[in-house]
Amino acid sequence: MHDIQLDAAGRLRHLITTEGLPAELITRILDTAESFVPEIGAPAKKVPLLRGRAVFNLFFENSTRTRTTFELAAKRLSADVINMDVATSSRTKGEDDLDTLFTLQAMGADVFVIRHPDNGAAARFAANAAPGVAIINAGDGSNAHPTQALLDVFTIRRHRPDFANLSVAIVGDIAHSRVAHSTIHALKTLGATDIRLVGPAAFLPADPSALGVTATTDIAAGLADCDIVMGLRIQRERIAGDVIGDIADYHRDFGLTEANLAHARPDALIMHPGPINRGVEITPEVAYSRQSLILEQVTNGIGIRMAVMAMIAGHRGAEPARPA
Amino acid sequence: MHDIQLDAAGRLRHLITTEGLPAELITRILDTAESFVPEIGAPAKKVPLLRGRAVFNLFFENSTRTRTTFELAAKRLSADVINMDVATSSRTKGEDDLDTLFTLQAMGADVFVIRHPDNGAAARFAANAAPGVAIINAGDGSNAHPTQALLDVFTIRRHRPDFANLSVAIVGDIAHSRVAHSTIHALKTLGATDIRLVGPAAFLPADPSALGVTATTDIAAGLADCDIVMGLRIQRERIAGDVIGDIADYHRDFGLTEANLAHARPDALIMHPGPINRGVEITPEVAYSRQSLILEQVTNGIGIRMAVMAMIAGHRGAEPARPA
Amino acid sequence: MHDIQLDAAGRLRHLITTEGLPAELITRILDTAESFVPEIGAPAKKVPLLRGRAVFNLFFENSTRTRTTFELAAKRLSADVINMDVATSSRTKGEDDLDTLFTLQAMGADVFVIRHPDNGAAARFAANAAPGVAIINAGDGSNAHPTQALLDVFTIRRHRPDFANLSVAIVGDIAHSRVAHSTIHALKTLGATDIRLVGPAAFLPADPSALGVTATTDIAAGLADCDIVMGLRIQRERIAGDVIGDIADYHRDFGLTEANLAHARPDALIMHPGPINRGVEITPEVAYSRQSLILEQVTNGIGIRMAVMAMIAGHRGAEPARPA
Repeated sequence: MHDIQLDAAGRLRHLITTEGLPAELITRILDTAESFVPEIGAPAKKVPLLRGRAVFNLFFENSTRTRTTFELAAKRLSADVINMDVATSSRTKGEDDLDTLFTLQAMGADVFVIRHPDNGAAARFAANAAPGVAIINAGDGSNAHPTQALLDVFTIRRHRPDFANLSVAIVGDIAHSRVAHSTIHALKTLGATDIRLVGPAAFLPADPSALGVTATTDIAAGLADCDIVMGLRIQRERIAGDVIGDIADYHRDFGLTEANLAHARPDALIMHPGPINRGVEITPEVAYSRQSLILEQVTNGIGIRMAVMAMIAGHRGAEPARPA
Repeated sequence: MHDIQLDAAGRLRHLITTEGLPAELITRILDTAESFVPEIGAPAKKVPLLRGRAVFNLFFENSTRTRTTFELAAKRLSADVINMDVATSSRTKGEDDLDTLFTLQAMGADVFVIRHPDNGAAARFAANAAPGVAIINAGDGSNAHPTQALLDVFTIRRHRPDFANLSVAIVGDIAHSRVAHSTIHALKTLGATDIRLVGPAAFLPADPSALGVTATTDIAAGLADCDIVMGLRIQRERIAGDVIGDIADYHRDFGLTEANLAHARPDALIMHPGPINRGVEITPEVAYSRQSLILEQVTNGIGIRMAVMAMIAGHRGAEPARPA
Repeated sequence: MHDIQLDAAGRLRHLITTEGLPAELITRILDTAESFVPEIGAPAKKVPLLRGRAVFNLFFENSTRTRTTFELAAKRLSADVINMDVATSSRTKGEDDLDTLFTLQAMGADVFVIRHPDNGAAARFAANAAPGVAIINAGDGSNAHPTQALLDVFTIRRHRPDFANLSVAIVGDIAHSRVAHSTIHALKTLGATDIRLVGPAAFLPADPSALGVTATTDIAAGLADCDIVMGLRIQRERIAGDVIGDIADYHRDFGLTEANLAHARPDALIMHPGPINRGVEITPEVAYSRQSLILEQVTNGIGIRMAVMAMIAGHRGAEPARPA
């Protein structure tokens, strides 16, 4: 994948996935983000790095929250931001998506932030983008969500920078989670060796060892002496019915509750990509506890998105938009 | 309520309601707004007071028009504006609203403009907001709509500055109107003593004297020698059916028509929060007459909203966003 | 119409239609647009000409793509842009549209970009606009779409500047197309004499000679030795059923296919207002061929819209917004 994501000089050209992204590049993104996350007590800064650039939020799947983080990051960089919600109903097939790409880049778009229900959609856009146009994947199917993964490892690095000696438990529906996939790749690349996936069997990947991780259906074992406990958002519709049993059972067996967290280290840090489902995968007491990093993740997410856009948009060559 | 709205130094911190807002503070808002309302013949000015600040229009109830006034005011102050329409259907309970607040302020929001169907929602957001974050109520249930009230008294002050000797008639569904509630409080605070509520019995409050006003179902008596006649927008669904009778009857008995306005002073000024229902609570001839201030109210509304945001946003302390 | 579109000094005041727009004024718009279309290899420039001005995209009919072109053009001119989608369902009659106009111009709107399903809507807004407020028609019913026509003639001028010796074929549903109407007027005004309309009989105007053009149902005759072949977007619902026959027949008889284009000059240029329907009125091979100007039209459309807004917005007198 790095052939699409990097230019000839090895600089970030698109951001599609954390899979195969070199450690030095991830580190450079995190270091850049440090300069964009405001210090405590200081207001956010507006910087002119993308002044005159047009960032298109092209969402083929609704997500007000994710769209807002990119919109805010782009505006803090002084870009012109265009929000386009492309209703699935108005789409017929993939060719139409490419016509949309060609048309919008002909308008002068510099960066596309793309959320799409299909696995691989972002890579397909990147493969067809004009030379000066960058694609940032904001989530494609159950495939990847790289900016979420980068903000996760950024947040961890600020509190537990020694990845080689870190134990991370990821709890929930890992099999269907683009967040989990992207975060596992980023953690591994930065040197983490002890990553445990925890959830009911239907939520665990078929072959954890292929990912370089372990998996268990026993939360006591999965959280034992863990430094970081990362909960995933549960789609209620996946639980209701006969897949898992009822929500109360799931909450008792796999929820981030004080009872379950007693198995982790006393200073374990709690993470979650948000928005939380109170009483399903987490309790509000845990979500807003002193050991929770959940809101800090949100703050850091703006900085990470600013960093990615700033690093990419310096590459713009502005050649005419025309498919090869 | 002033404990929530004011900071320790007595400055505006949030704007939730005009109830209990000190007269000096109301006057300071109106004076500030004077500097933002362009002179006749001059274009609107763009000022950099909120440059780098993020204003979130967080609307739990759809209102394109109100949202637009805040969006335009914030942009004239050079703020970054994020519009978020939160469909009621996607909400389950109040805790989710607070999760939304905590998340968005973690993104770096400085000001929230909130429209919500529930009475008291804005105060609840203010009670839970982080130290550096301000809440502006853009209408909560039938409770309050303070910026509308401030633009009303601002508009009156420009034409009839002697509130102590002013007669104001408010005509329509006062019982269910957040505009009427907020405007009555603002008028009283500025010294108005003669406020008459006019409407069918079902539209009048149970105890007008508790509000320091009088009430009547007789429009001739209510408008007698009035300086200001303020019509309220009528929800058609409240009239149809057996509550009031039909629309033609309502229009004849309580509409701002030339016949009914003959009871007021010959130089009486006409106001309405908009948008008007032609042929229901007002005729277009009256709405666009020389004595109508309705469009001037709209113009002044931008200035008032700029003033409120400018006065509040200087207070930002930018502490980390985390619930107490 | 020029009495509404031009001010006393003959400058552009509104843009409602290309019908009757003087050739010198069209030429001045095209010349202005040249300065806004970025050179190949150069990034788009941001210019401060509309700084502090408010541009309202007031869309009574949904069109994300057209709205985006105006939004981007206005932002490149540094204007504050407000997008308002006015659902048809919430409208009752034309008076309400004018109330909306009066209200929004009282907020300080400088320019309205209006898309409306009714023929003549833009002219009606212009007739009622306040002295300092400009109306730009972004498509009204099947009547006119002047910025599309201007970008069409701009694109042609860049490649085939000798309008007097130009042969242009317009293929598709001309009778119902506001694009065709506006483009024919612009071409005629700039001196084009050989304009052929091509389509099934139901898609051709009743009296082509009144427009100064010829019409044919035979694509071989219509395209013979043509310099420019302009396809129109086909509404699928107009074809299905008994009007035309099926889509495959239409594609064979009137689609811009390599077979049909063999009748035109070998260096004929292909145009289309977009978005294309692959396999209906055009093939993707033709749409993205070296002779296609379709994506260049999109790029030029931003420059044309910047030019129109820049020329108009210098006229703002900023008198109070009040209907005559």
